[in-house]
Formats: sequence, structure tokens, C-alpha cells
Amino acid sequence: MIEAKNITKNFRQVSALKRLNVSFGGNRIYGLLGRNGAGKSTLLNLIANRLIPSEGFVYVDGMPVMENDTALGRISYMSEDTLYEPSVRVRRMFEWSKLFHPEFDLAYSDTLAEKFGLDPRKKFGQLSTGYRSIAKLIATLASGAEYLLFDEPVLGLDANHRQLFYQELLMRYAEKPCTVILSTHLIEEVSALIEHVVIIKDGSILLDRPAEEIRSMGFTVSGRKEDVLAWCTGKNILGSQELGGLMLAHILGEPGGIPEPLTVTPLDLQQLFIHLTNA
Amino acid sequence: MIEAKNITKNFRQVSALKRLNVSFGGNRIYGLLGRNGAGKSTLLNLIANRLIPSEGFVYVDGMPVMENDTALGRISYMSEDTLYEPSVRVRRMFEWSKLFHPEFDLAYSDTLAEKFGLDPRKKFGQLSTGYRSIAKLIATLASGAEYLLFDEPVLGLDANHRQLFYQELLMRYAEKPCTVILSTHLIEEVSALIEHVVIIKDGSILLDRPAEEIRSMGFTVSGRKEDVLAWCTGKNILGSQELGGLMLAHILGEPGGIPEPLTVTPLDLQQLFIHLTNA
Repeated sequence: MIEAKNITKNFRQVSALKRLNVSFGGNRIYGLLGRNGAGKSTLLNLIANRLIPSEGFVYVDGMPVMENDTALGRISYMSEDTLYEPSVRVRRMFEWSKLFHPEFDLAYSDTLAEKFGLDPRKKFGQLSTGYRSIAKLIATLASGAEYLLFDEPVLGLDANHRQLFYQELLMRYAEKPCTVILSTHLIEEVSALIEHVVIIKDGSILLDRPAEEIRSMGFTVSGRKEDVLAWCTGKNILGSQELGGLMLAHILGEPGGIPEPLTVTPLDLQQLFIHLTNA
Repeated sequence: MIEAKNITKNFRQVSALKRLNVSFGGNRIYGLLGRNGAGKSTLLNLIANRLIPSEGFVYVDGMPVMENDTALGRISYMSEDTLYEPSVRVRRMFEWSKLFHPEFDLAYSDTLAEKFGLDPRKKFGQLSTGYRSIAKLIATLASGAEYLLFDEPVLGLDANHRQLFYQELLMRYAEKPCTVILSTHLIEEVSALIEHVVIIKDGSILLDRPAEEIRSMGFTVSGRKEDVLAWCTGKNILGSQELGGLMLAHILGEPGGIPEPLTVTPLDLQQLFIHLTNA
């Protein structure tokens, strides 16, 4: 279990995190969601001991992370910032990871590099935004760590590579139990993957609940536009989309009775997120 | 009309584009799609005269773009690379844009900056990935140009800001006719916006067709998993997703007759893209 207890982090005059309490564990996949600047990366940096809290403590399996290699060795963190020199070759970066994570699987990282079309002889600084993300996400997938933290893992990846990442993450997760924290802006794409949702807003926890519970906070109806519009009158509508004569409406609350021509599906997590975090 | 005629672009030994012919015009919104490295950014750089073709020519409204300020003035290009010094303040960047695009609307760029929560006094180098994208996309939205080219406009943007960008783009498009080229990896999100799809693969045009036609290349069925599985046997399935007991399958071809319990919806463009461009 990773536990952040009563964490405050100030940068000059700005409080990035405010008396925050949250924990991650139990071999689940967490979605860590929040708007730009909400404090997601700050929280991950504190968990990985790249930042020191102004107040509070972070524990990994009961051990404080501060200057504790045993605790930190259980965490592999793909951060937005990179610690690698531009001149370091990708294969070298994997080899270095093995020094810190003895269970790092070099055969697996080579296989992943091939699947993603990443040439491990390339220097990190030569890679495009997408391939930088790929090199970093491979290092975390292959780390063998108990806690895998990903900050914007699919930044710059094309649709095919994003799908490949989600597949490989699920395979890694199935083969060797681990707790995964996915911090991402592409909520819709990961909504089928995540089992627990943590939303940060302005440095505080806004929501911390199983994904299943959150999906039951509302529902989506779809059908012919006129039928949807007629049925939705007076309901608490989060948003809607149209395509041709069809309409999709995201609604808070319980569906209750649904008239025949409409279809009911689970709530769109991204729409709920936008609703909860806007202004 | 922007016309790229018989364009080849070589970088050392590598051919990024090969005898490519494509045109963009008619006040439509184009989706320019392709995998990482397919040649999308190279094509946009050639159109905006930031690169010179090894062979072939680019014309804007009949004028060659090469060293032609009249032709180039009709184009506003939000590129992945930035031409701005890190020390330049955002408001200054907008003012410089006005030198090149006399119809640049500074009141509009100020309004947009406020809507996106971008402080125009900040220096470009201080901005996060998301806010860099926002500063650049505002400059293009407010340019007043006839041709708006966006290369990965939503890189690093949170879900709320992505939705705001799509809304503002549609408003700009409705108020003043323009031709828009959107190059993006987030295909699903823009699929309702784009009217014409151009897919580049390995430096050549793979597909160049109205979005409506492409959507009719296949369809999606959804319903209870066992019903979907039973009905799909022997069909050309692009991919599928599951959620609880529900299943969604993307299928190439004509739906023909559909058994009652299943729902048919238009084809998912992102799934089709992955299918067409994989390996």
C-alpha cells in the first residue's frame, strides 16, 4: 500500500497540495485524474521521493519513502520530466534501470521495444515526443516493481501505439500482480481499464471511489434525436453529442424507467469528469 | 485551394514523402491522419514553406508558396516545433503574429486566453506542455487566415480544454469561412468534426475521401456479448470492446439485416484507422 498522509506541498506562495490524504494498493489499477495544474504530477513526485512534502509523510508498505531505497525500489515511476541525458542510448537507459530495479526484465524491454518499433540504439534526445514516452513507459512496464506509476504515458503516441500500451499493461498486470497508477488526460480511452478513480482538484481530493460506483452515478441514453430530447426534459444533463439524426445524452442520477426506443449505457467517465472539474 | 503536386521530400537517405498529390480547400474541415513518422508534419511544413520539397510544388490559390508572402499570408500554421524564444511573453507572441497576419484579432486572442485560463504576461518558456499548445492554437484561431493548419493542437490539454478547443474551432469556422487541416492522434475525439479524411502512410496518401463515405465503409454493432458474438461469426471484424456484459464490435462491410436485440451505429473512425495503418 502507498499512503500519502496529510500532505501539503508549497511552491513559493502557491499551495500545490493541501492536507491531502490518499492511498493506492490492493493490486488495483487506479486512474489519477485532474485538470492541468491540479497537482497530479506533484503527488506522484512526492510518492517517488523526487519532491519533499512541506508537511505530511508518504509511506510504502509502512515504510517512509524519504531516503529509503527499499521503499523506493518497490516503485517504478514514468514521469513527465526525464532524468536521462539526451546522449544516452535507449538500451543503456534500460540497463541503468536494472541497477535500481534488480528484477528489471531486459528480455521483456527488448521485446516491447520491438513491438513499438523503437530502435534501442537510438539516443534519447533523438526521439520524437511519442517515442520518448514509449522509451519511458517500457522502462516502467519492464521494471518488475510492485507499484507502477505512469504520468501521461501516451503523450504523443498514435492510436495504434496507445492501444498496444493498454494491451501490454493489462498483460503485465495479469502476469504479475501490481498496483498501477495511471495519470492521464485521455480519460475516455482508459475508462474500461481503471478499477478505482481518484480525482484531484486544486490540490485536494475531490473523489476517491471504485470506478463501478462512479459509473452508477449516472447513465447515457442514445437513440433518435427527437426521442432523446423528449425523454431528457427536466433531467440533469451533463452533456450530449450528435451524429446524423442520432443523439447521445449523459445524465446524472438513476435511469428509472426508459421508453422503448432509447438505449441505456453506463455513464461516460470523461463527461462526468468535465462536469465535476469545470470552474 | 492548397495543392501539393507530385511532392517528394528526402532527408538524407530517407524519403519522408513520395510523389504525393493532395489538395485541401472548399471551406471544409480536414482530418490529416497518420501514424507517428508517416509524414504528416513534413507535409504541413512543406505547405507552410518551412521546408523545401526535393521535388514537386505547393500552390495556395494558384500561387507557388515558395518565397511568396501573399500566398503564405493566407496560411496560419500551428506547428509542433515552436519558432518562439522561451523568453517571449504570450501577449507579445500574439502581437508579432499580427505583423504577418494583418487580420489577426487581438481582442479575440485575449478573450480566448481568458477562456483557457492562460496568463498572457507569462513567458512562453515557463508554460507547461498543455499551455504551450494553448498559446499556439490561440494564435492560429485568431489569425484571420483562410487556411488554418493545426499539428497536434491538443497535445497535453486536459479533457475540458480539448472540448473548449473543439467548440471554439467550430465557432470560428461558422463565423468566417476557412479551410481547416487538423493533424491529430486523437481520432475518436475529432471524428464528429471532420468532413474529409486524408490518411498518410509511409509518405504516401492511403485514403482521401469524405468522412461520410468512410463511415459507410463499415459499422458498429452493440448489445449483449453473447448476441454480438453469435451475430458476428464469419464477419470481417476490425476490433471489439467489452464493458460488463455488453460488447461493441466494429465490422467492415454492409450491415445487411440486423437481428432485433442489436444496435447498429456508424463505424468508429479510430478503429478503422488502426486497422488500415497497422504494419
